[in-house]
Amino acid sequence: MRLQLENLRAKMAEYGIDVYLITMDDDHQSEYVGAYYREIAEISGFTGSAGKLVVTKDEAGLWTDGRYFVQAASQLKDTGIELMKMGEPETPEIVDFIYDKTPEGGCFGFNGKCIGYVEAKEICDRLEDKNVKIASKRDVVDEIWADRPAPDYTKMYILEEKYAGKSAIEKLAELKAQMNKLKAEAHVITMLDDIAWLLNIRASDIPNNPVFLSFLLINGEDVCLYTDKAHLNEEVEAYLHSINVRVNTNTEDIYADVSSLRVKSILLEEDKTNYALVNAIPESTYIINKMLPSTIAKAVKNQTEMENLRKAHLKDGAAVTKFMFWFKQNIGKLPMTEWSVLLKLHEFRSSMEGFLDESFSTISAYGSNAAMCHYSPSPEHDTVIEPKGLYLVDSGGQYYEGTTDITRTWACGEITEEESTSLTLSVIANLRLAAAKFLKGTNGVALDYIAREPFWTRGLNYNHGTGHGVGYLLNVHERPVGIRYRLVPERQDSYPMEEGLYLSDEPGLYIEGSHGVRTENMLLCVNDYLNEYGQFCKFETCTLCPIDKAALNTDLMEDRDIELLNAYHENVYNKLKDFMNEEERQWLMEVCSPLTR
Amino acid sequence: MRLQLENLRAKMAEYGIDVYLITMDDDHQSEYVGAYYREIAEISGFTGSAGKLVVTKDEAGLWTDGRYFVQAASQLKDTGIELMKMGEPETPEIVDFIYDKTPEGGCFGFNGKCIGYVEAKEICDRLEDKNVKIASKRDVVDEIWADRPAPDYTKMYILEEKYAGKSAIEKLAELKAQMNKLKAEAHVITMLDDIAWLLNIRASDIPNNPVFLSFLLINGEDVCLYTDKAHLNEEVEAYLHSINVRVNTNTEDIYADVSSLRVKSILLEEDKTNYALVNAIPESTYIINKMLPSTIAKAVKNQTEMENLRKAHLKDGAAVTKFMFWFKQNIGKLPMTEWSVLLKLHEFRSSMEGFLDESFSTISAYGSNAAMCHYSPSPEHDTVIEPKGLYLVDSGGQYYEGTTDITRTWACGEITEEESTSLTLSVIANLRLAAAKFLKGTNGVALDYIAREPFWTRGLNYNHGTGHGVGYLLNVHERPVGIRYRLVPERQDSYPMEEGLYLSDEPGLYIEGSHGVRTENMLLCVNDYLNEYGQFCKFETCTLCPIDKAALNTDLMEDRDIELLNAYHENVYNKLKDFMNEEERQWLMEVCSPLTR
Repeated sequence: MRLQLENLRAKMAEYGIDVYLITMDDDHQSEYVGAYYREIAEISGFTGSAGKLVVTKDEAGLWTDGRYFVQAASQLKDTGIELMKMGEPETPEIVDFIYDKTPEGGCFGFNGKCIGYVEAKEICDRLEDKNVKIASKRDVVDEIWADRPAPDYTKMYILEEKYAGKSAIEKLAELKAQMNKLKAEAHVITMLDDIAWLLNIRASDIPNNPVFLSFLLINGEDVCLYTDKAHLNEEVEAYLHSINVRVNTNTEDIYADVSSLRVKSILLEEDKTNYALVNAIPESTYIINKMLPSTIAKAVKNQTEMENLRKAHLKDGAAVTKFMFWFKQNIGKLPMTEWSVLLKLHEFRSSMEGFLDESFSTISAYGSNAAMCHYSPSPEHDTVIEPKGLYLVDSGGQYYEGTTDITRTWACGEITEEESTSLTLSVIANLRLAAAKFLKGTNGVALDYIAREPFWTRGLNYNHGTGHGVGYLLNVHERPVGIRYRLVPERQDSYPMEEGLYLSDEPGLYIEGSHGVRTENMLLCVNDYLNEYGQFCKFETCTLCPIDKAALNTDLMEDRDIELLNAYHENVYNKLKDFMNEEERQWLMEVCSPLTR
Repeated sequence: MRLQLENLRAKMAEYGIDVYLITMDDDHQSEYVGAYYREIAEISGFTGSAGKLVVTKDEAGLWTDGRYFVQAASQLKDTGIELMKMGEPETPEIVDFIYDKTPEGGCFGFNGKCIGYVEAKEICDRLEDKNVKIASKRDVVDEIWADRPAPDYTKMYILEEKYAGKSAIEKLAELKAQMNKLKAEAHVITMLDDIAWLLNIRASDIPNNPVFLSFLLINGEDVCLYTDKAHLNEEVEAYLHSINVRVNTNTEDIYADVSSLRVKSILLEEDKTNYALVNAIPESTYIINKMLPSTIAKAVKNQTEMENLRKAHLKDGAAVTKFMFWFKQNIGKLPMTEWSVLLKLHEFRSSMEGFLDESFSTISAYGSNAAMCHYSPSPEHDTVIEPKGLYLVDSGGQYYEGTTDITRTWACGEITEEESTSLTLSVIANLRLAAAKFLKGTNGVALDYIAREPFWTRGLNYNHGTGHGVGYLLNVHERPVGIRYRLVPERQDSYPMEEGLYLSDEPGLYIEGSHGVRTENMLLCVNDYLNEYGQFCKFETCTLCPIDKAALNTDLMEDRDIELLNAYHENVYNKLKDFMNEEERQWLMEVCSPLTR
């Protein structure tokens, strides 16, 4: 590693760059990226999924968050790269660090294609009073990365209208109507899930995210998709032709094409577009900087998508429920590890018709491992599951009928009173949020208290959002809907509630060194009644899988909580019973029977 | 009225203006304004407190909101001015109306000093593609308003440090530190309550708002207050000198001084600064457009202010409680009208030491009048209070020890089951919100559900915010804190909770043609305990006045609601008993005794 860091410094010296920033972004502001984009791993050895690396002539710092402090400390050992723990009071802000390390009149470099415009601009603006030169056109790491893997171009497939619910032609027409309304003559979309949604095409360029690396440029009537030819086949080409989408397989042409646009105005979202692309727009073109209309349209699931999601949850719920039965039957009898049962769960899901992939890396965590929110086991880092304490499994599937995300926490045998309390609180919080009634237009943030209240009144909390939006056979984290108690403007996830929004409900509790619990169901926002006060909405719980009621402490539950749980279980049993074999069905009836005090 | 409208049109023709916009703003984006600024009343006859008037050669439209539909319809009769009901689907947006009515290459006019920059710029930007000339430098109405009243310049007085808790010198030093942090070389403040707070000076230029018309310009070490000399006396002049604030009594010089600034950057809030002033800033000066640091500092009450507020509430609570006793003793015996009892309440408040003024026009509303949220009686529009049904009184006081705001709804005799239900729900909602525990940093919007839940679960709602921030001997509506379920970005009222924030808790219910209820207490956000999850906060209820427990329906109340009410009443009795005479005290003990089922 030291070698590549020195190679980078040699290149920096060659190009007169004093400070160089490396991100983990792709060209599309994706949450997850493929191996091609792992420049930080190449230079530093750090393989976590979030981080930024700043290199100077004689210093280097890697910024990452709490999930990766232990891993990064170990991987950065002896590299000469300092670990910068984000969120710790002594850690400098990356922008301040860059400012301090860049000499007056010096040069600050980064690959402008792999960083968001707003983020890069903030740093560049900050450096203005030092008369710093910005070198953003060169991917310096690429020049020294001999065995860089190729980008993962996978084959595209068409999502039929029986799944998508609306044709790409209709979606494009609606988008153009939006552009007209905003007086936008052109529009560029770089977010991969927006492009996939708009065109009703999927692929699998990013693990668990069924998208394809591409850009979309709309200029009046011309719609051009920039994407590598490796994605294409005859059927897809014919389809794209049929929906009047032109294809340019020289993906990088997007930059030149944008720079030669002759339009008065272009619609894009600066925070979600890379620095190089925004900078390519001619000075004379007015940028209409708004949340992409496709982001909002994609979040509000149509009636067909809603119907399909209900089907996806039948399959996914059946798979996880069968896994639960297997787990409960065999714990203490068969040897089990976090990794081995993860594979078993994958088997159950894979057997479901139309299952395509997991929607994210499964979290399979036993005991104190579950107290780490983002823990994932691997064959190398695995823990035996013993017949006591709690096991947490957070997983999801990609189906033609949509994307799922579910977390359950189960007793493996005897559990402590504290473990039972934690689990009970997460179940209470989950059920109460799912039972909320509210006026259309309520922002997600206004519903968070329902889930926090059982924790906050006891001086407890969970350090993550209560809910996030989920795509339709798309990303498991999808803007702009979410439920949290602190507004985080850059997340843009407090969109007002309306029918069709699809989001998770996942309160939890994490006791370091002891245990972690989380209970997660997917919710669909649907219309309730309309009266003189407006349109009332409620949630429909989509996820179907028993909650481990034997592990709950009924003393903590109010009557309404027990009623909610029993109603949920009745629904689970009715919906899933036909997916079970006789043994499973008997057991399901038992675990779904009413809880009594 | 028709005459002034025609005079205005003659002036418009003289200046070549095709469309002219008149606002009800002053130069400072104040919520309420004095008589000097009532140009709309002069031209149209409409005397409501909110509206915008657009005049063309042969058309005119007045935009106002639901509070004023009836009044405006009556006042605009035969004026040739069309009532534009804001929020109704058929009503055009004012910006669209102006766009449609302004001819290609025409001229759109308004007084740039009396409109916010963001609002005016939106309209001007919209007109850009019609090559419209903007005439913003002339107050055309002023030229035809012969007997225009003078601005209300009242005498300033100094708010001693025992009330303010922090000297103006300290406040200015902290503000300069903030400017340094933001790299702002200059700073202009036009919001009157921010200036009053910063300098620890009060006056009463605006009814109920103890502020003075002025601007403040900070340029490096120079702090200049632009204000009319009518405000000043020797003591205040000496005080301003002692805190190193220069005074310029030619208020209008602010525009020239800003235009001749030679600084790299200026801090201001574009949304809260008038159009003319922002436009006066030289092109080369960078505008740092942020919420004013003083707005945040002013909202977080210091320990002295918090202590004083508690004292203000003893006085205010005693006054309203004595009024309640008088009301309850005399209803059905003495003749009462909304206006007569309003005067009686004023008498009780006036007798309190340090009482300066009401903090807003008292809402004194009987029966179905209370269903109109913003109803106020007058000697001309008054209603007899009969010994049955509900009476609602929403009022507040200005004291050296701070500003109060309280609403109570009382039974005047027999009430219906529906009236009792409404009142009980507002009491339940009020008490539950006041009892919330939450982590520091929770946005106000995340607490709203607590108060809405008793209504929403029954398909009911109240069409206003649950809470708003209140100033310290300042405006009764103060940014940036508030509690509502829909984010309204332009209100900027969802600031994260922390100790010192002071806000109202006022759920209500309004049944048109029948009755209206609201229960409002003031809350102070205070620290609760600190643990591994962070700093927990809670509310301290400041307002001290019995809730009409005999009118409540205990069947709707959970045990926790009854406990909260009884604890509240115990506190009310203990705090107020020494302010009561013997007869009042006996009654207070009775009405504060525990509620039982």
